[in-house]
Amino acid sequence: MATINKRFVLASRPSGEPTPANFRLEEAPLPALGDGEVLVRHHYLSLDPYMRGRMNEGKSYAQPQALNAVMVGGTVGEVVESRHPDYKPGDAVVGMGGWQQYSVVAAAQPWALRKIDTARVPISAYLGVVGMPGVTAWMGLNKIIEAKEGETIVVSAASGAVGSVVGQLAKARGCRAVGIAGGADKCNYVVDELSFDACIDYKKLDGTDAIAAALAQACPSGIDGHFENVGGAILDAVMRRANAFSRIAMCGMISGYNGAPIPMAAPQLILLNRMKVQGFIVSEHMALWPQALAELGERVAKGTLKYRETVAQGLERAPEAFIGLLKGRNFGKQLVKLV
Amino acid sequence: MATINKRFVLASRPSGEPTPANFRLEEAPLPALGDGEVLVRHHYLSLDPYMRGRMNEGKSYAQPQALNAVMVGGTVGEVVESRHPDYKPGDAVVGMGGWQQYSVVAAAQPWALRKIDTARVPISAYLGVVGMPGVTAWMGLNKIIEAKEGETIVVSAASGAVGSVVGQLAKARGCRAVGIAGGADKCNYVVDELSFDACIDYKKLDGTDAIAAALAQACPSGIDGHFENVGGAILDAVMRRANAFSRIAMCGMISGYNGAPIPMAAPQLILLNRMKVQGFIVSEHMALWPQALAELGERVAKGTLKYRETVAQGLERAPEAFIGLLKGRNFGKQLVKLV
Repeated sequence: MATINKRFVLASRPSGEPTPANFRLEEAPLPALGDGEVLVRHHYLSLDPYMRGRMNEGKSYAQPQALNAVMVGGTVGEVVESRHPDYKPGDAVVGMGGWQQYSVVAAAQPWALRKIDTARVPISAYLGVVGMPGVTAWMGLNKIIEAKEGETIVVSAASGAVGSVVGQLAKARGCRAVGIAGGADKCNYVVDELSFDACIDYKKLDGTDAIAAALAQACPSGIDGHFENVGGAILDAVMRRANAFSRIAMCGMISGYNGAPIPMAAPQLILLNRMKVQGFIVSEHMALWPQALAELGERVAKGTLKYRETVAQGLERAPEAFIGLLKGRNFGKQLVKLV
Repeated sequence: MATINKRFVLASRPSGEPTPANFRLEEAPLPALGDGEVLVRHHYLSLDPYMRGRMNEGKSYAQPQALNAVMVGGTVGEVVESRHPDYKPGDAVVGMGGWQQYSVVAAAQPWALRKIDTARVPISAYLGVVGMPGVTAWMGLNKIIEAKEGETIVVSAASGAVGSVVGQLAKARGCRAVGIAGGADKCNYVVDELSFDACIDYKKLDGTDAIAAALAQACPSGIDGHFENVGGAILDAVMRRANAFSRIAMCGMISGYNGAPIPMAAPQLILLNRMKVQGFIVSEHMALWPQALAELGERVAKGTLKYRETVAQGLERAPEAFIGLLKGRNFGKQLVKLV
């Protein structure tokens, strides 16, 4: 008898904040494998802010998530059946299996599946610090911001899967690392556990002026590089404290994902301070991944790159966990444990 | 008896639009030359939008213009007396002589004075197309936008000293060049005389939506590069039509120079389209000037780079001409003829 696979599909597009009604849980038997295909049983599903953008119909950097199709998402798991010579049952793999318990993967497709070593690095880390979020941090810091020793680097959503890596790598490169996060717990973690030099709790501050004043204190030499995950008042405040020739890596603007306008108050600062503001998508620069993953994996194995996870138990909890992620309710990398 | 020098000093800082009362005309005898100094009689004074920024007290990329000091500005003229071995009376020179009839220049200072060849290029062109505005255009197009053959390049203030060069160089590089300018006369000139592919008259259009619609028509393949001199609704409209991996060179934001807020409506487009938005100041990249000036001078001498000037007669007209420049009343490079 065929194995039954539970999965979430996009039932409807949200207007504003997503609700549980936008997702529909389905069950379907798994098909038999074709030539070159691999059946993967997912251990963890990754939940990431970019998924909110794909739920919209409008123009984005990726095709919108199709209605009634399985929600996209990164997954780690084990091969349970294989008709591809490079994979055998028991292999640990990372891929884009989506919001479901199992996936059937055409393993020859580039980047569809990658074998991972779980001896030195826990399997879940391949969805976070040694996965897409970690590489995103690495690329923004090294290729967009081009952080140099002695510079001051600020990152928003600093306790998150991406931001926590940005700050730790900045410290490793001899920079001053300043985080922005929501709540005392997250800020304490960022400073005490991750060894950032300072962290600003934006939830205690009302608006751009207050955040800019806190940044002035935390960044006595101004800001040379900024890694943006949030946008809105945080970005405006950072720009006010930005130094000449500073660089902003635009990685996310979660404050606008639900459709609220998030104008940049003073774009003339880009000119006055000869800034570079650049958006990037990590999946468009696959050539950099091996170098990034090698450094990230090595640092995790040696214990010099720390991370934290929030794990929801069971596929059924995925919508709720995702909605919480968009509100900042997670602490570190948001995962769903599926086995 | 010492020669009398007429000059304009900054009498007071404007709030909003400058008025004639912000400038004061003075007369003073010229001092005797010291060792290494050169006396230059100015033929033309250059008026440029950047001067408005310097009239403010606030932070900008340059020191503010000091009160009661001679207004800064580029000048071309002839040496009338020299105590520096490299200069002799009659030499044509370009420098930063300011809003006055004569200047005494310490000629050994880097970039204080440069001899120019007026046999193939008219002297006034060294303040425009073969001077700072021309190099600004060259640098933005080649070093920030990095325009490539077949791309679509948009430039605002397209009939101006900088914009007219941006579009003509873009055409020379095999790009589609689309201008934005104020008024039918300027637009006709940009297309008919300068051979841009299209020009949008923003004065006929009301707001971002209308400008974006006109850009959609003029740029059927979207926008790959944009050279920004204006900001505000024009920048917002361009961003809506910007392609993936497009580049915006931020050179000026004249729409905000008098203090009006000019928020960027949708900075999330920088992320969605993986854009690069970068400010630059031409005087911070002096190493590039010789290469740029060589190309610009050669094109002017051969007649493949055209330009237009608006010339105010006499130093006394400088404030009025400058105020008009900020309102777009000039057509091409704004000069003041002093002899």
